[in-house]
Amino acid sequence: MSKAEEEPRSRLGVGQSKAAPDLGNLFRPRSIAIVGVSQDFTTIGGKPMRNLLAHGYRGDIYPVNPRYEEVGGRTCYPCLLEVPGEVDLALVPVSQRRTLDVLRNCAAKGVRHVILFGAGFAETGEEGRLLQEEVLRVAREAGIRLVGPNCIGCLNARDGIPMGFSTSFEAEDFLPGPVALVSQSGALGYALFALAQEEKLGFSYAANTGNQVDLDTLDLASFMLEDEPTRLVMCYLESVPSGERLVGLARRARELGKPLIVLKAGRSELGKKAALSHTTSLTGSDRVFRAVAQQHGIVQVDDIDDTLDAMEIFARQKTARGRRVAVVTTSGATGIMTADQCEEQGLEMTTLRESTRERLRSVIPNYGSAMNPVDITAQALNDRRIFRETLRTLVEADETDIVVFTTTFGRDLLKIMCAEMAQIDAGTHKPVVAVLTGARDVIGGGWEVLREAGVPVYRSPKSATVAVTRLVRFSEFREGAPATSAAGEDAPVPVGDARGVWTEERAKRELPQIGIPVPKGEVVRSREEAERIAGSLRYPVVAKVISPDVLHKTDAGAVRVGIGGADGLVRAYDEITRSALEHVPGAVIRGVLVEEMIEGPGIEMFVGVEDDPQFGPVVLCGLGGVFVEVLKDVTIRRAPIGVEEARRMLAGLRGYPLLVGARGGPKMDEEALAVALSKVSLFAHRNRGAIKEMDVNPVVVMEEGRGVIALDAMLSWRDEGTGAEGGG
Amino acid sequence: MSKAEEEPRSRLGVGQSKAAPDLGNLFRPRSIAIVGVSQDFTTIGGKPMRNLLAHGYRGDIYPVNPRYEEVGGRTCYPCLLEVPGEVDLALVPVSQRRTLDVLRNCAAKGVRHVILFGAGFAETGEEGRLLQEEVLRVAREAGIRLVGPNCIGCLNARDGIPMGFSTSFEAEDFLPGPVALVSQSGALGYALFALAQEEKLGFSYAANTGNQVDLDTLDLASFMLEDEPTRLVMCYLESVPSGERLVGLARRARELGKPLIVLKAGRSELGKKAALSHTTSLTGSDRVFRAVAQQHGIVQVDDIDDTLDAMEIFARQKTARGRRVAVVTTSGATGIMTADQCEEQGLEMTTLRESTRERLRSVIPNYGSAMNPVDITAQALNDRRIFRETLRTLVEADETDIVVFTTTFGRDLLKIMCAEMAQIDAGTHKPVVAVLTGARDVIGGGWEVLREAGVPVYRSPKSATVAVTRLVRFSEFREGAPATSAAGEDAPVPVGDARGVWTEERAKRELPQIGIPVPKGEVVRSREEAERIAGSLRYPVVAKVISPDVLHKTDAGAVRVGIGGADGLVRAYDEITRSALEHVPGAVIRGVLVEEMIEGPGIEMFVGVEDDPQFGPVVLCGLGGVFVEVLKDVTIRRAPIGVEEARRMLAGLRGYPLLVGARGGPKMDEEALAVALSKVSLFAHRNRGAIKEMDVNPVVVMEEGRGVIALDAMLSWRDEGTGAEGGG
Repeated sequence: MSKAEEEPRSRLGVGQSKAAPDLGNLFRPRSIAIVGVSQDFTTIGGKPMRNLLAHGYRGDIYPVNPRYEEVGGRTCYPCLLEVPGEVDLALVPVSQRRTLDVLRNCAAKGVRHVILFGAGFAETGEEGRLLQEEVLRVAREAGIRLVGPNCIGCLNARDGIPMGFSTSFEAEDFLPGPVALVSQSGALGYALFALAQEEKLGFSYAANTGNQVDLDTLDLASFMLEDEPTRLVMCYLESVPSGERLVGLARRARELGKPLIVLKAGRSELGKKAALSHTTSLTGSDRVFRAVAQQHGIVQVDDIDDTLDAMEIFARQKTARGRRVAVVTTSGATGIMTADQCEEQGLEMTTLRESTRERLRSVIPNYGSAMNPVDITAQALNDRRIFRETLRTLVEADETDIVVFTTTFGRDLLKIMCAEMAQIDAGTHKPVVAVLTGARDVIGGGWEVLREAGVPVYRSPKSATVAVTRLVRFSEFREGAPATSAAGEDAPVPVGDARGVWTEERAKRELPQIGIPVPKGEVVRSREEAERIAGSLRYPVVAKVISPDVLHKTDAGAVRVGIGGADGLVRAYDEITRSALEHVPGAVIRGVLVEEMIEGPGIEMFVGVEDDPQFGPVVLCGLGGVFVEVLKDVTIRRAPIGVEEARRMLAGLRGYPLLVGARGGPKMDEEALAVALSKVSLFAHRNRGAIKEMDVNPVVVMEEGRGVIALDAMLSWRDEGTGAEGGG
Repeated sequence: MSKAEEEPRSRLGVGQSKAAPDLGNLFRPRSIAIVGVSQDFTTIGGKPMRNLLAHGYRGDIYPVNPRYEEVGGRTCYPCLLEVPGEVDLALVPVSQRRTLDVLRNCAAKGVRHVILFGAGFAETGEEGRLLQEEVLRVAREAGIRLVGPNCIGCLNARDGIPMGFSTSFEAEDFLPGPVALVSQSGALGYALFALAQEEKLGFSYAANTGNQVDLDTLDLASFMLEDEPTRLVMCYLESVPSGERLVGLARRARELGKPLIVLKAGRSELGKKAALSHTTSLTGSDRVFRAVAQQHGIVQVDDIDDTLDAMEIFARQKTARGRRVAVVTTSGATGIMTADQCEEQGLEMTTLRESTRERLRSVIPNYGSAMNPVDITAQALNDRRIFRETLRTLVEADETDIVVFTTTFGRDLLKIMCAEMAQIDAGTHKPVVAVLTGARDVIGGGWEVLREAGVPVYRSPKSATVAVTRLVRFSEFREGAPATSAAGEDAPVPVGDARGVWTEERAKRELPQIGIPVPKGEVVRSREEAERIAGSLRYPVVAKVISPDVLHKTDAGAVRVGIGGADGLVRAYDEITRSALEHVPGAVIRGVLVEEMIEGPGIEMFVGVEDDPQFGPVVLCGLGGVFVEVLKDVTIRRAPIGVEEARRMLAGLRGYPLLVGARGGPKMDEEALAVALSKVSLFAHRNRGAIKEMDVNPVVVMEEGRGVIALDAMLSWRDEGTGAEGGG
């Protein structure tokens, strides 16, 4: 194969970024060999052939099987190496035993893209896993990109090229369009595809990765995202192949302004276990995944209907300027329910201006309502102008961002109204959404008119408002500042003795450089030293025993607060060291930390770092007390984050009102906390791989302008060191 | 009309309780007059006639209109009074102007049931409201029961009698069955009916009440509930005609073991406003409605899909013994998603016993999974025994309460599997639910098989698990103790001087009899009195100014805690009375309350009573501090409640873990608080109509066995009295 052929081909190719794999020949092959083809078109060996023929594939098809002279009217070759022309893609429906031989032939023939359908690999146990590794090795050596094994294939819906044996490939034709889909599960992925096509959602590509020994969901999603006519990529994931690459994909989606919809299964403990036994791959922490999705504008969906609902509104390719909704209804009931749901979802039912209401009153019957929700009543049955004028007025009003039409009308009149709605939709940048409630034979006609025009249609106010809310959040995210610009590169410092566990005193020595101030203090190593410095301190002070063996200092009586003078300090020294030793006999005591005592109004919070196996270091933040212990009220972001994102993190806490002065309290220094969070996140990021865990708890947030201060801290490094406390 | 005719008629009638209105002749009329009939069957005047003829109504039809000789081949009468036979029901599609005349004729003819279709009544303004009142007066005088006005009619689906002009009445036939539906909105009600019929849900009756001048949603629901073959009643409400009657209906539903499903619209503030302008009737507080629904086992649904999903599972008429779910899947993905959703909804993915797993392993391929979710893999395509044996094993296993089957299979094989599932479902008391995911032409056949058999089918794991959760809660409620047995009749006392506002001292005098202990204390009216008693007190004590004018005592410096001795008490007397007067110049000071100070571990909570306009007195409870002020963490029940229900109330608080000893704290006297709540609720109930509001805050809940004690309280009576503090 010549060098030139490795470049994207111009016939069907479009511009690709360097990051995305070049899979033009996989999805737009000029020639396809089916190695291990069967004449029986009801089998896995026969279906791919039948599907290509049925859809009139215009490239060359090379059936390969020594048992046949011809298949489906095409010459069948005994061996791949005897195929006369070049082969862009090999479809391989053979059993796992024969896979390696076929792959070696592909290598010899210069085939660069192969889809392996066969099962019996890693999903069946150790033997299969070893075979799968060998398959990958052979492919890598030959420069072959693999899809599968244990998959049901890929689809180019735009050009009508089915490459596999999904039931969905038996459809008469594929509706082309802006949606792309990649799924780790073939059964679910193509069920979603079929459901979406039923909803008249047009597709560019669809793919199923199965055991994803080489190309995984993120590789394929990345290729699809770069495809210019594709405007929306949907992924079904059980595992995240790489947290880093998922974040990169989300960043790129943001740059391109294309939504990335992700359905992540295996979120619960049992679901995770099931995903493991099903796919043999790691699934990470759900709370971290959710946080990362939110942080990077991934549209995370939870369920099948939810996925379809989201795809439908995003496929319309409009964004919302804000969250103000106007509702127009022909029957009070669904209008009221839509208003209820808007409130529940956090949308805003807009207040219509007097000028808008006046315009509405000139067309709506007087027993209708010109308030939001606007009730045009069944009179719309008799006077078509009412609906048209109302919808147009609401779309044109400055005070609306989204307009929802809800009705229980049906049949011919509904079709006429829907045609008018589609026309108005085409002339506005504002999202327009329909809720049609009724039996299929009643609303089917109107539904079809809207879907042909690409207008999102739902049956229930709830599904409509949930989808609108996703669109609003996505729009806000697109408009907002990029999420991950960190707070200056100068803040954190790399550290020297980064091993073992840093307990309070050692961690506090570093915290000011990392980004969180600590109380002034010094360590006294003996009773005599305590006596010596006692006279020069500003009281009150706090005294704490320093010991790698005493982790719960308060429980051990190893802390004394509010020491008012020199005598008290010396007495405290004796008492807390004795108490610590009584509590943990034989504890190594390195001294006593004497610190100024922080007084005045303050809120105790915690700032933490954890090392997620998929996403690397994440920062955590929450209020202390009941908020963490009873309510598990914690927000998480993948490090590093900027101050803006840190502010959003704080605002996402249920206890947030306390920070801004709820309960008649003062407004606290939220800004200083956000800056500290950002700096800690940068430190965690710089030291990724090295930090295991960090816990600054409590961090006292003082009144606005007075900053934050850390009262206790610990840091645990991956390098366990000598077992002794690193640098302690 | 003779006396005998007022009795329920035996031909179609079934036993009715005294409480439910006798509407047998309305829903099963032997003869129907259509007064104001039209020959044009496309109009509101013509449709009811056409619908009756089309459905082959076997009773007598009497068209009435002086303009015609015949309508639809039947003799038309110029006036109702000239109709030869008895008329059980009159359908009246005339305009509002002619309604009164028609009604008077109905009275003269002895017609006892009338459905008024015409609009133009209370929904249009004052004039219409007055006309509507007159309509009601005439009907009452004549003993006529009215449906409407402004409605689209009623349906007896069992006997095929459509009484009105809903588009749904144009269906070829109605599927009879156990479901009844009553809706304030005609458009929505019959859209739900049509959707449900499409899902093969069979109906007994359906009705739309419109302006419900006489018979309202609860009357009709009550009639339907008593109908023996009806096993499930669904109501769409915008307003609650009577809280008392709704609760009565729910109690009766519980006695009969029939679910009552309620979709309540107008929950949000704007939705409420819209409901007002739409129906001219009051909508109450959403949080109280939700609390009452939960308390009385009403299945509250939120949306159209949600309603249909719930109807489908309840129509199967099974209950769940517990919340342990087993899932069987052919494709890992939907099984994993179902496990995720079970966790999210609070269901339990059951742990299969070794004996069950062994049975499963004997049929499932070794690369499948015999753990829950059970993955039978695509091998089920080749061996039908796998699915049948797996499902049977899971249904028979002791450790399962509900079995969910989820697949993306389709076509003929799915039909076969569904037939087997239906057979297994028929042979077990355990609920069995299917999740079929795929395009209509793929899954339609299997779906149909299951629905014909009445097996609940969903498209998404989420909708399935939400419906299962509703069934589980309903089953638990049915098994649990009745919710409203109050805690003994002896506890509360009626009170004499029940007027004005009782501030702390007065309220505390009554609290022990009501059911909450208070600290020992006495009132001193002067400095001298304080000096006199100071020597005999047990210190520490608390002193508080008593004044109807000083409501926020702490803010006014009118409270002193921790007074350690006699001198301190006298000093405190001076200081707090002076401070109160400085804070509220001219305040009337009635004395100072001196109380023992409560010490030791305790949690501050509040117990309150509010008078809901729809449901009467409700009790409220919550933890103090951030739980109420930041988190709005309050539970509510309609009074009276028993101790058991009070316990459930506490367990529903987000802060509940603190009561049972979270954060390493002691276990508190939850039981004493539950008893106190029950007693307060009984007091509130006994004095319903008289109490406006009561607030006991804080109530300190002490350690287990040490009880509760009220530190402050106020009670406000409806009777405002003289303006002075009642009895203070």
